[in-house]
Amino acid sequence: MTAASLWCSSAWLPAGPVDRVRLVIEDGRLSGVHAGVDPSPGDHVLRGLVMPGFANCHSHTFHRVLRGSGVPGGTFWSWRTDMYRVAGRLTPESYHDLAVGAYAEMVEAGYTSVGEFHYVHHRPDGTPYPDPNAMGEALISAARDVGIRLTLLDCCYLSSGFGQPLSPEQTRFGDTDVHAWRKRVDALADAHRADPDVRIGAAIHSVRALEPRDMQVVASWAHEHDAPLHVHLSEQVAENSACLDARGATPTRVLQDAGAWRGHATAVHATHLEDQDIQILGSHQVTCCLCPSTEADLADGIGPALDLARAGAALSLGSDQNVLCDPLEEMRRLEMDQRLARGTRENFTPVALVNALTTTGQESLGWAGPGGLIEGASADLVHLDTSSAALAGARVDRIPLLAAARDVADVWVSGRRVVEGGHHRDVDVAAELARSIASLRSAS
Amino acid sequence: MTAASLWCSSAWLPAGPVDRVRLVIEDGRLSGVHAGVDPSPGDHVLRGLVMPGFANCHSHTFHRVLRGSGVPGGTFWSWRTDMYRVAGRLTPESYHDLAVGAYAEMVEAGYTSVGEFHYVHHRPDGTPYPDPNAMGEALISAARDVGIRLTLLDCCYLSSGFGQPLSPEQTRFGDTDVHAWRKRVDALADAHRADPDVRIGAAIHSVRALEPRDMQVVASWAHEHDAPLHVHLSEQVAENSACLDARGATPTRVLQDAGAWRGHATAVHATHLEDQDIQILGSHQVTCCLCPSTEADLADGIGPALDLARAGAALSLGSDQNVLCDPLEEMRRLEMDQRLARGTRENFTPVALVNALTTTGQESLGWAGPGGLIEGASADLVHLDTSSAALAGARVDRIPLLAAARDVADVWVSGRRVVEGGHHRDVDVAAELARSIASLRSAS
Repeated sequence: MTAASLWCSSAWLPAGPVDRVRLVIEDGRLSGVHAGVDPSPGDHVLRGLVMPGFANCHSHTFHRVLRGSGVPGGTFWSWRTDMYRVAGRLTPESYHDLAVGAYAEMVEAGYTSVGEFHYVHHRPDGTPYPDPNAMGEALISAARDVGIRLTLLDCCYLSSGFGQPLSPEQTRFGDTDVHAWRKRVDALADAHRADPDVRIGAAIHSVRALEPRDMQVVASWAHEHDAPLHVHLSEQVAENSACLDARGATPTRVLQDAGAWRGHATAVHATHLEDQDIQILGSHQVTCCLCPSTEADLADGIGPALDLARAGAALSLGSDQNVLCDPLEEMRRLEMDQRLARGTRENFTPVALVNALTTTGQESLGWAGPGGLIEGASADLVHLDTSSAALAGARVDRIPLLAAARDVADVWVSGRRVVEGGHHRDVDVAAELARSIASLRSAS
Repeated sequence: MTAASLWCSSAWLPAGPVDRVRLVIEDGRLSGVHAGVDPSPGDHVLRGLVMPGFANCHSHTFHRVLRGSGVPGGTFWSWRTDMYRVAGRLTPESYHDLAVGAYAEMVEAGYTSVGEFHYVHHRPDGTPYPDPNAMGEALISAARDVGIRLTLLDCCYLSSGFGQPLSPEQTRFGDTDVHAWRKRVDALADAHRADPDVRIGAAIHSVRALEPRDMQVVASWAHEHDAPLHVHLSEQVAENSACLDARGATPTRVLQDAGAWRGHATAVHATHLEDQDIQILGSHQVTCCLCPSTEADLADGIGPALDLARAGAALSLGSDQNVLCDPLEEMRRLEMDQRLARGTRENFTPVALVNALTTTGQESLGWAGPGGLIEGASADLVHLDTSSAALAGARVDRIPLLAAARDVADVWVSGRRVVEGGHHRDVDVAAELARSIASLRSAS
């Protein structure tokens, strides 16, 4: 790939925004970051603010079908029933088509990487496809079509609840046992070992879904492969109660005992925690992935994000059920929800919030090495047009707290320009989503 | 004004969205609403969703200067110090110029009416301008320039705290006494009695700002003039404590005893309430104006909106400090904040939420008579372009829960088309705001 040179009127460097920055891209990476310089004739000039690529650390892509679907209120658990109905209809082809639209929507919003928490593995009756990883490959293929980097977090899901078999609508999520899961994921990881834009990680669905000995196998797989390990943690009070009844300990403690917090672990949600849980997650420097739009939509509650950060945990962000696709809004809600819960302002600085959305998030998805707008980092760039009325008068260091997905003008992923003038270069996102969603809703 | 005929692929009528609706506008009002009809050759065709005009029931326009100003965190009270600094710089000319930008931003976002909670009355040293209503007239003139309907809620503000005089930076907010306030507001109301797009209402700043006997005078003025009466209520716990100490009762009870809840009253925020307060506000059918973006930004907390509605209170919405200008986002946060606080979903139906943003809000601002998209109502229309990727797949009855200000394509106020293709017809909003804000920030 030839070198490209971008001149930014402002760019968000690790310590915050800096004016007049030249970014040089070579072979998909930043080979130069020069602050306080004038534009040169060969530079591509970007007015506004250029930020590092946003990381979507927790996505269930097929939930995109439920956005605006008119499912009536109810609880988290009734929502889950509707969600299973959609899961039951997916095929490798329809999942690929849906993911093309959903991932293209993400990259238009500034997400340059996505972590797919993937458990729709097999046919609805639980039998494998001819390629047992056909569904995962469908997602990988969609991400490649769209130009977003993908971490496929292959999820082991063996029980419906503590000591209970999978329910009929969950059958396709399961493998025969944890060893079958391991064999399948080994094959997937082998197939993508040399793929620069794909990582294979592991996921424990939740403390409900696996026996502790099986959690150990999944955690060991991740540890041996230096791969990310993600797990849903304490999103609902009911899960905590059931875990205390079944295991005599909180989900955080059960996962600790299973070795989940060694290495490169991410706890998704971390909403309903005991003080002791916060200390465990902090002392193991676990990344806690908050999903504010989902946690509001599903009435989960506000998690102890600031307490977690103070205890030593890292924070990242995810779109989860994809009721919203706006990384900057997720980031802003992380702060705003703490304000509502705690009664204090500026719990996180803008720099800390941007780090959660960018560098910490990319690490949580297994993209190691330098992150952010520094030499050697992957050239993942989000160019915000800051000329809207909404941003008039805003200081550049406050813009991330005010901007939104629709301010995203251009996006580069690994040095490739994928979004131009607010639109994906190759995908008509609204049309693609409308078509694939209509098709999945009408499928029997 | 000649008749105009709009054909809408969908329009939000009082019971929810209906397809293929013709709206006929005559003399600024809807003279016909015909559902299930085909477009005729003379119709202006609007694809997407047409909604009734949004009401912004609580605005402090000059706070727009603080958006993105880089004021560091702190508390509500430290934020207030920064806010007073801006208030101290306003002149009738600079306030007019700022309000042109701020009101134009509002109408571009779909607000067709705004209630300005107005207390920057006099010169910084407290002496009146040659026209004692020069500041109010500056706002009225700006609203006229922009084409938004304005309810100027003229605020009586006499004390800094219980039994304490105004502080130096508050001096310009005060009148000599409540009788001077009354005389000034009488003149303002007389001057605008025949103005079809302006209403003069009254406001009690808060229980801190007036003695109970003075509250009675303000409430009586509103009652005699059949005018709206607005009051800041229990936004902060500290105000409640001080009121209990000084008056031996909650703010809600103090205001009840002063006769504030008779007639056409709106309580702004209503965040920190006792059960007894909720019963009082409900039994008097007070309108409670929630300001979700402000209540999050200032770390106020989440008010008991659903309990208030169940007790009989009406709900409306306001942009307050104008950190955000997005009526649909304010509306969505009303529901989402209840989900976070209560752990239950769909606390309010989409129809109830739209009513809060439209018909109830317009009533709270003194725009009596039929509201919404029905015959005889003011022709206040917001046309949403629903073709974005974010709305792909959404059922039309869920679109208000997913759309945002930037989906607003066209706006009519009292039958006049003010916004076209997402932009104000006469005002370059971003440029106007940038200019007036820079000027106010640099003023000494």
